[in-house]
Amino acid sequence: MKLNIALLAGDGIGPEVINEAVKVSDAIAKKFNHEIVWTPALTGACAIDAVGVPYPDETHEICMKADAVLFGAIGHPKYDNNPSAAVRPEQGLLLMRKKLGLFANVRPTFTFPSLIDNSPLKRERIEGTDLVFLRELTGGIYFGEKGRKDHGETAFDTCTYTRAEVQRLAKKGFELAMTRTKKLCCVDKANVLETSRLWRETVQAMEKDYPEVTVSYEFVDAVAMRLVQWPNSYDVLITENLFGDILTDEASVISGSMGLMPSASVGEHTSLYEPIHGSYPQATGLNIANPLATVLSAAMMFEDAFKLTAEAEAIRDVVNKSLEQGIVTEDLAIKGAKTYSTSEVGDWLVANL
Amino acid sequence: MKLNIALLAGDGIGPEVINEAVKVSDAIAKKFNHEIVWTPALTGACAIDAVGVPYPDETHEICMKADAVLFGAIGHPKYDNNPSAAVRPEQGLLLMRKKLGLFANVRPTFTFPSLIDNSPLKRERIEGTDLVFLRELTGGIYFGEKGRKDHGETAFDTCTYTRAEVQRLAKKGFELAMTRTKKLCCVDKANVLETSRLWRETVQAMEKDYPEVTVSYEFVDAVAMRLVQWPNSYDVLITENLFGDILTDEASVISGSMGLMPSASVGEHTSLYEPIHGSYPQATGLNIANPLATVLSAAMMFEDAFKLTAEAEAIRDVVNKSLEQGIVTEDLAIKGAKTYSTSEVGDWLVANL
Ligand SMILES: CC(C)[C@H](C(=O)O)[C@@H](O)C(=O)O
Ligand SMILES: CC(C)[C@H](C(=O)O)[C@@H](O)C(=O)O
Repeated sequence: MKLNIALLAGDGIGPEVINEAVKVSDAIAKKFNHEIVWTPALTGACAIDAVGVPYPDETHEICMKADAVLFGAIGHPKYDNNPSAAVRPEQGLLLMRKKLGLFANVRPTFTFPSLIDNSPLKRERIEGTDLVFLRELTGGIYFGEKGRKDHGETAFDTCTYTRAEVQRLAKKGFELAMTRTKKLCCVDKANVLETSRLWRETVQAMEKDYPEVTVSYEFVDAVAMRLVQWPNSYDVLITENLFGDILTDEASVISGSMGLMPSASVGEHTSLYEPIHGSYPQATGLNIANPLATVLSAAMMFEDAFKLTAEAEAIRDVVNKSLEQGIVTEDLAIKGAKTYSTSEVGDWLVANL
Repeated sequence: MKLNIALLAGDGIGPEVINEAVKVSDAIAKKFNHEIVWTPALTGACAIDAVGVPYPDETHEICMKADAVLFGAIGHPKYDNNPSAAVRPEQGLLLMRKKLGLFANVRPTFTFPSLIDNSPLKRERIEGTDLVFLRELTGGIYFGEKGRKDHGETAFDTCTYTRAEVQRLAKKGFELAMTRTKKLCCVDKANVLETSRLWRETVQAMEKDYPEVTVSYEFVDAVAMRLVQWPNSYDVLITENLFGDILTDEASVISGSMGLMPSASVGEHTSLYEPIHGSYPQATGLNIANPLATVLSAAMMFEDAFKLTAEAEAIRDVVNKSLEQGIVTEDLAIKGAKTYSTSEVGDWLVANL
């Protein structure tokens, strides 16, 4: 099979972790007789530096033509304390989501037996956790009308959802639930927000099409609590853009494996795969960043975008092996144990595939 | 001193926990030579049942005339799965906040040494946690224009803030920070929302008036993570209404003492004190609910509304003593240990003041 993949390394540690994911993907391709054509493109702060915008049209065209996008991370400290700057890396992210129609962000949180003691939660609370958030990614308050009134003294943001937007996200949620334990939780704030009431009534109306799925409706504040108390009581959760931003990040830290969590963004055009961690600027160029989340994002890409399940499994197996054998970067090392560099971890994965 | 207190017991376990707080308050008043005049009033589902609305005008007048309001909890299961019902208990809550001008919700999260092992977090993560959220409570998306368009197919909610609204909340935050470790965190989503950018620029402009306070600005998703990872790295946090709803609930479960957390809502008129837990309908009338959060809310009332610090300290001391000696309701009991009823805990507190 020929796989055309757009490669958006981004900023900070992005290029380093992407590099290892490419090495592992190429080794898998070789082993299973595929050919990968990687097409690199600019996005984020490095794109602003090079061409003045964070998501150049050329990058968009490369993504549109590709079969999948593998993405590193974006962001640079020079923009951190200036969220009102006219041009910022995050704008590229939002524009990319919108233009690629990436309306569903798939964010699993699961545990690795060998890492469970890294969790801030007690073992008995976190053990067995295996949940997936589907976060709506191209609507809501992120993309609604916003601005100032009264000579700048009043600011406003508008959250808007259409029934069709809710339906297409919820459909993915029901379908995913059918492949898992058939439990779906719709997270909203229907006791306060009209958009949430639209979410709830829309999902309720879809229940009859998936009679095997048990649906629960929970308020976002209650879910923020229960994620810390009993994370393993959840399976598939669907929610709107801003709630998803907050809750998926909260969920990511409970497992103790934040540095290992992959994600996918899917929708109307090419799907995109990326680690959930950021660009970690302080570590740029030091060859210390953990490449496993990006490697596991590549595994997600093989499985979801190309339906190459054996290839994905092979990647996950070798990652598990590296964890068990302690071939890990410093963030995961047990005190006093030897640690490996970003590229050493990648080399080990390739050698042990 | 004569203390005029409006007593809003509300629904579910509200009346039971309020009853114990009244007993303890009366005992304190007697000991310190104060006279408390309690004026009960209806709110929540019980007000809907009695007079058709959840926050009757009569209740509002009683609150306006009082020196403080002590509040139980509201909510009834018959409204739970119907967030679009025309009349609902929460509307009473929102109306009460708006009409009393309760623009700042003060939500501490702290730990009790004897309860630390109840936390879902590991001891070393939670020990020493002592933070306070100031949540804006009468603005933002809760109260902005909302509705439907396109024959009901599109829903919208508007989040609005004025500079003056941000200033009055932030002022309380700076002042509170000055009485504590002088650390203030402004939580926003300024990389996406215009209202957040207004929050950030307003708080930034106020920094010069409080040169001793160190202010940090963090995105809401990052705070949702760090609250689980390093809760004791925070002190005072200020944020807008919806973020505050989610984050204060998240923060409340990390301590392991959720059933003990008091809160205050303060603003333009009478201040209100209430436990953060809900109406816990399943336990109604069983005399098993934990009254300590309400008792500690009464302590907050003595200290903040009446500046009666010794009285507040006396209440907190006896609560600590009850915890140390295991005079607790079943939710806090160590497996196998004797548990006490709601009223037995109250009686013990009164007897040991
Ligand atoms: C950088 C920011 C705009 C973005 C978001 O809020 O969506 C990020 O937090 C994320 O979750 O991908
Ligand atoms: C009941 C609901 C409207 C309310 C809110 O969202 O403010 C509650 O969750 C709270 O935090 O007091």
